[in-house]
Amino acid sequence: MPKPLILVTNDDGIYSPGIYFLQQEVAKIGRTIVFAPESEKSAVGHAITISDPIRIRKLSRRNGFSGYAVGGTPADCVKLGVKAILDIPPDIIVSGVNLGSNMGMNILYSGTVSAATEGVILGIPSIAISVDSHKEPDYTVAAKICAKFVKIVLENGISKGTALNINVPNVKEDEIKGVRLTRQGHSYYEEDFDRRVDPRERIYYWMDGRLIPSENDPELDDIAVQENWISVTPLHYNLTDLQSFNEMRNWEIFINEE
Amino acid sequence: MPKPLILVTNDDGIYSPGIYFLQQEVAKIGRTIVFAPESEKSAVGHAITISDPIRIRKLSRRNGFSGYAVGGTPADCVKLGVKAILDIPPDIIVSGVNLGSNMGMNILYSGTVSAATEGVILGIPSIAISVDSHKEPDYTVAAKICAKFVKIVLENGISKGTALNINVPNVKEDEIKGVRLTRQGHSYYEEDFDRRVDPRERIYYWMDGRLIPSENDPELDDIAVQENWISVTPLHYNLTDLQSFNEMRNWEIFINEE
Repeated sequence: MPKPLILVTNDDGIYSPGIYFLQQEVAKIGRTIVFAPESEKSAVGHAITISDPIRIRKLSRRNGFSGYAVGGTPADCVKLGVKAILDIPPDIIVSGVNLGSNMGMNILYSGTVSAATEGVILGIPSIAISVDSHKEPDYTVAAKICAKFVKIVLENGISKGTALNINVPNVKEDEIKGVRLTRQGHSYYEEDFDRRVDPRERIYYWMDGRLIPSENDPELDDIAVQENWISVTPLHYNLTDLQSFNEMRNWEIFINEE
Repeated sequence: MPKPLILVTNDDGIYSPGIYFLQQEVAKIGRTIVFAPESEKSAVGHAITISDPIRIRKLSRRNGFSGYAVGGTPADCVKLGVKAILDIPPDIIVSGVNLGSNMGMNILYSGTVSAATEGVILGIPSIAISVDSHKEPDYTVAAKICAKFVKIVLENGISKGTALNINVPNVKEDEIKGVRLTRQGHSYYEEDFDRRVDPRERIYYWMDGRLIPSENDPELDDIAVQENWISVTPLHYNLTDLQSFNEMRNWEIFINEE
């Protein structure tokens, strides 16, 4: 059986340390090819580039890390790699290791998660992996747990349309309690805009905020990570609110019309 | 009772015709304030601006169209308007009228829809409105149906966390059959990348593609619009794949750990 082909991407950019750790770890399982943004693309969500040309550039770092730097978003990287460059689609896509967690509401803004969602839209099993720290992150545990899930998914399969979103607490490996199946939590940033005036007297704002955690439900992503568990949330891309759909059947405007 | 405050946004930019038609129509119901991107921001998905300053500029067009041009994404416009500029939150947010439909998979890439999703994240009822044409669109029908739903939502309320995504067929008003409650369809763009070489012999790509429609289920957004119905889909922002969540409970890695 040929070695699986693993597409590696991220949103921190192709020169970030996290993607190097991830590629090195999954290279133990299969052949790797990197398609990652030329520069940092954090918080770009599921943006794609349709009004500008997308440039690519072959690139190699040390120890077999090679692929393409893409002048676009994480979703662009996945689309372009799969649809324009590779002759055969990859067996799996991994996105990360992201500097900082992607949990709760914040997964909506995440380029890391969107790359994985884009992968499953294209029919390829995909995993997003993040470490819960912006300071002195330890990428090794995250890279290893991602590789473990790559093996599991390649061996056992996963529902078509399901991406995995994995978040790893930034503690020593022996302090991690285990791996917990979780749901997207309700944590979010309560935004604060910092208003400033530039030397030409024009107003501008910096977006800032403080994280409001979920209520204390151990099955939610951020609560699990806070309790030193690795959180694994299956995500899909169907945004229909089925509960509201059923409630809205009674709305007069729909009853009268049909 | 004071007139409701309606925040108007879009992703085609504050100078686009669609947002003007929308503002004029909803101004019949309440006071309006516009927060919209300075320039076109199509396909930016749920991107937010965290690594750059966000500039804003007061702007008025004719007939009471006034507000702020924002140097950011549609989600930035909503966050900044609600959190930094307005003293009291708006009663409702409308986003559009978008030039081109936002249905099926493509809602994931949509700045128009993300502005509405951002609204409900902030706890404000929100509606995205699009017309299914890129050529010679008729914005008037779309603006009117959006205003109709603004009234319905303000009078009857809607579940917290539910945004409405409305798509209008681009046909004469008397050819529209009615308003149908729908689910997000499975239509998507089968991408084609057009490879080119610039005068300096560097490679670049244009993302292009052709639309693959949903299977023929009348409750799906694109099928309804194709049959000349206005499609109304309730959307939420919880991406947890509950079916996979239940299936994955049996995965050895979770059983052994807990």
